[in-house]
Amino acid sequence: MGINLAIVGSTGAVGQTILDILRENNLDFSLNNLKLLASENSAGTKITFGGKEITVEAANSSSFHDVDIAIFSAGSSVSKNLAPKAVESGAIVIDNSSAFRMDDKVPLVAAGVNYESLYEHEGIIANPNCSTIQMVCALKPILDHAGIKRIVVSTYQSVSGTGYQAMKELTEQSPKYLNNEAIEKQIYPHQIAFNMLPHLDSFDENGDTKEELKMVNETKKIFQDENIGVTATTVRVPVFIGHSEAVNIETKSKLSACDARQLLENFSEVEVIDDPFEAKYPTPIEIAGKDQVYVGRIREDLSIDNGLNLWVVADNLRRGAAFNALLLTEYLAKYII
Amino acid sequence: MGINLAIVGSTGAVGQTILDILRENNLDFSLNNLKLLASENSAGTKITFGGKEITVEAANSSSFHDVDIAIFSAGSSVSKNLAPKAVESGAIVIDNSSAFRMDDKVPLVAAGVNYESLYEHEGIIANPNCSTIQMVCALKPILDHAGIKRIVVSTYQSVSGTGYQAMKELTEQSPKYLNNEAIEKQIYPHQIAFNMLPHLDSFDENGDTKEELKMVNETKKIFQDENIGVTATTVRVPVFIGHSEAVNIETKSKLSACDARQLLENFSEVEVIDDPFEAKYPTPIEIAGKDQVYVGRIREDLSIDNGLNLWVVADNLRRGAAFNALLLTEYLAKYII
Repeated sequence: MGINLAIVGSTGAVGQTILDILRENNLDFSLNNLKLLASENSAGTKITFGGKEITVEAANSSSFHDVDIAIFSAGSSVSKNLAPKAVESGAIVIDNSSAFRMDDKVPLVAAGVNYESLYEHEGIIANPNCSTIQMVCALKPILDHAGIKRIVVSTYQSVSGTGYQAMKELTEQSPKYLNNEAIEKQIYPHQIAFNMLPHLDSFDENGDTKEELKMVNETKKIFQDENIGVTATTVRVPVFIGHSEAVNIETKSKLSACDARQLLENFSEVEVIDDPFEAKYPTPIEIAGKDQVYVGRIREDLSIDNGLNLWVVADNLRRGAAFNALLLTEYLAKYII
Repeated sequence: MGINLAIVGSTGAVGQTILDILRENNLDFSLNNLKLLASENSAGTKITFGGKEITVEAANSSSFHDVDIAIFSAGSSVSKNLAPKAVESGAIVIDNSSAFRMDDKVPLVAAGVNYESLYEHEGIIANPNCSTIQMVCALKPILDHAGIKRIVVSTYQSVSGTGYQAMKELTEQSPKYLNNEAIEKQIYPHQIAFNMLPHLDSFDENGDTKEELKMVNETKKIFQDENIGVTATTVRVPVFIGHSEAVNIETKSKLSACDARQLLENFSEVEVIDDPFEAKYPTPIEIAGKDQVYVGRIREDLSIDNGLNLWVVADNLRRGAAFNALLLTEYLAKYII
């Protein structure tokens, strides 16, 4: 007996990454049936998986009979519309969109950080935002050991977070810029090639982007502490895969860089790469395609009593989305359903 | 009567930018004689300036007779060796390297921020590091109005800060990466194309880079306040020209984002680009070739009582080096020599 899994948004960047990880077959659950769903536009696409060809079907409210777990990665409006239907049909939904993340009835779960919240689910479970997942993974052992008072984070986020069209835009703009040819902009409001855009998602009236507010609010929810101060500046950078974050924290009790490094080395979700004299620190090019959260540049911040700086890098499609969703699937399959 | 100006490192990225700005002729001093100096390797190069051809000479200890002001942009070892000789010959040295910045006898001057320190010079004046200059310009009016307790800065620094060879490396690596060809690394220890390197200059025993410590120590010296807390994470990004900075500050007294914006709009060294609903904020591509410091994303940080976030972008070759040195030259010519 394996589980019947449906993937909504199976032709997108995250959907394809879910299939890649399933093909690697390193997760501790077995699949009975795999149903691939997408928009009307992508329906009919043939995808080879496990030696057979699966035809992508158009997702609709009757797609979820006989589905145990449905992973949604097709944007908020699809999730808002179809996730409740999937739950009515008896499926558990793991939703990659932001649609339900701040809903009190929906657990927001970063794998390895707060699996225990899964037990409170009422049908829908939310995957945190990619930039939140890697940060809370890197901070969890520090939170447990020393407490965290405040987080100041600046991000360096790759274009794959926007999807395939944005990767195409960076691929096309880069040689055009080098050849002094006219640049076309379709996905981003400014050129992304060889540029920095402090603009992810839309702005609110205080001048924060929704991406920044996601990092603030999701971190508080996952850590179950409304009093943690969090402020974020999120920046889109010309990198294809892998988000980087400069994370500055103020802990409640003193924690040396050496002790923080040890805590992180002992934490299952994190790999420490921190030997600066040998130029060893994580970079997006090096960690793309990998599943863990990579932490380096662990050092004390002497501007306050209990300050620490960390450099946190993860594959946003894998750790920040697909792999987190599959780890939640694994946990549900093993312990809950 | 104009001034006799020498440029040491005249064939490098900053030296060439100094010549570009002099050609634009927007500064309020007149040149009598321009002497172009460089290493033995570049001696003999012909550079056209003001309608005549100037031959670059090899810099040595006897190069500075009849020179009023010598701008050094040829690295620390050249400055350490030749700047004292230039002073002995009667020249005032404006040094772009880090050689003398923390010397108590050497004023460290960001134009428009602490011109008054120029009066204390004993022959050598230091130009701050590029990443420091743009940050102190953006913070000066806030410092004067509300005081600053602490700064947390993350940088996004372009390859031109390393020089022409690094610009060439990014130019060459980018299409090779897109075509799946082997990448050659000469200037940086990792691929810079489509990547992020949290590594500028060398590391110290606490894990900070020298670039990060420059931002800490130079800011304290320029603001003449050892008690300002400063912590920095400096990152090299695949941008050709223009450094960006996510600057988080804690002010001593409350300052609204609206008031901070007004202070910055009224400050001569800064141009505010801050209309996020119209996708208006500074980006390096847009400000490259310009001389001011550009500030956007001005917003309150609600994680502490008196928090503010700013996004600060400037052309590192111009504002961060050549233009600052020429503004100091202008001030010296008008008021001091």
